[in-house]
Amino acid sequence: MAEKSLYNYRVEPQEVDFTLRATIPSLGAAILNTAGIDAHGKGFGVDALNADNHSWVLSRMAIEFDFQPVQYTDYTVATWISDYGRVLSTRNFTLTDVSGREFGRAVSQWAMIDLRTRSAVDLSWVGDAHADAIVDAPSPTERPRKIREVNPTQRSEHRVVYSDIDFNRHVNTMRYIEMMLDMLPLELLTSGDPVRLDIHFLKECRYGQTLAVGCELRERSALFEIAGDGGPAAVRASVEWK
Amino acid sequence: MAEKSLYNYRVEPQEVDFTLRATIPSLGAAILNTAGIDAHGKGFGVDALNADNHSWVLSRMAIEFDFQPVQYTDYTVATWISDYGRVLSTRNFTLTDVSGREFGRAVSQWAMIDLRTRSAVDLSWVGDAHADAIVDAPSPTERPRKIREVNPTQRSEHRVVYSDIDFNRHVNTMRYIEMMLDMLPLELLTSGDPVRLDIHFLKECRYGQTLAVGCELRERSALFEIAGDGGPAAVRASVEWK
Repeated sequence: MAEKSLYNYRVEPQEVDFTLRATIPSLGAAILNTAGIDAHGKGFGVDALNADNHSWVLSRMAIEFDFQPVQYTDYTVATWISDYGRVLSTRNFTLTDVSGREFGRAVSQWAMIDLRTRSAVDLSWVGDAHADAIVDAPSPTERPRKIREVNPTQRSEHRVVYSDIDFNRHVNTMRYIEMMLDMLPLELLTSGDPVRLDIHFLKECRYGQTLAVGCELRERSALFEIAGDGGPAAVRASVEWK
Repeated sequence: MAEKSLYNYRVEPQEVDFTLRATIPSLGAAILNTAGIDAHGKGFGVDALNADNHSWVLSRMAIEFDFQPVQYTDYTVATWISDYGRVLSTRNFTLTDVSGREFGRAVSQWAMIDLRTRSAVDLSWVGDAHADAIVDAPSPTERPRKIREVNPTQRSEHRVVYSDIDFNRHVNTMRYIEMMLDMLPLELLTSGDPVRLDIHFLKECRYGQTLAVGCELRERSALFEIAGDGGPAAVRASVEWK
């Protein structure tokens, strides 16, 4: 049985907003980066999978920050896989500052796809082959919520450009999160209050598509839905400040 | 007399495009990040200056990449200040991979502004106070070129949102570069050929403004001009592939 793996980061100047606190997308990027590096180091990263025409695809993620640390804060991301289902594997994260205070946590669920058919692969063999990578510790918070219905009160459009796409030629996760947060009032984004974000990926968006971003804004929370070229929902998300 | 300072980086998964090479903005971000950290560590960072209501503002920058390293490449950014003029200080960079091969370089010129008046401050006192931070080594390439005239063949618009702005509430440098590159054909962006980018900041752009981005596309190069809310040019740039 494995141990949690630790990776060190620092809040860099380009990662803060004008309150000098790390933005949600910059902390989210550190979390996803940790997932990539940890899988890479353990031999089941995207690079190793690609050799077999497979790849990891993020299906759902929940992230929570009790506060957003200020510029130059050193912090540690701990990550561990708690289980492999038949379709989804669960990777967990906690973020802790140098004083040992946990200020953030995340739960992510990943599918493996066959790059030729773009369909999900049965993960049972991964669970067998990499059973020693599983850590016997529960997820640090409630798993990602499904968002079933969004009734937009505001809409925006975004054409997918080169800067939006990742190594898979799809819109990268942090860009989706930025598109959504950019529709919210600055006061909410910079309140410094505890925040939870749930995101759920239903379909991939690609270079050249025009995305419609719908936002259902409530008092201290919002629901979002993104669809490409008039198609069905590709991404749904919710964000809630305490 | 000081020595060049070295900072280590790695090309992270979120920094590559679908060719698995680091993007120009991600390498540019590492360069600017190095500037911030080096100034911070030496006691003349933005955080120290803010206490006196001063701040560094990037005036011009030239960056060159002979190639763009692939995912997980370890590299070192060396930085040094070669001189302080009355208005501009010059900070230089080289990027070197672990085999010692220099694959990139940059020259940046910075003004110091008074945050109350937003006007430039005479840098002579900085040159005196921090004379020991100057390194007696020339800039590693031609200094940033002035771009005088752009005759756009293509135009796009961009509304400045939360994700675009930095700690100063202005559009951050890498977002300007992304806006410009996103107007170019993918074949050019992913050619892997040596590239040089010159960027020149004339005016600050702020949250809520609508930016007009004009691009004069030539065979293997392009000129750009960005203006906010119908005003005069705020940024001009050129990019050229060999």
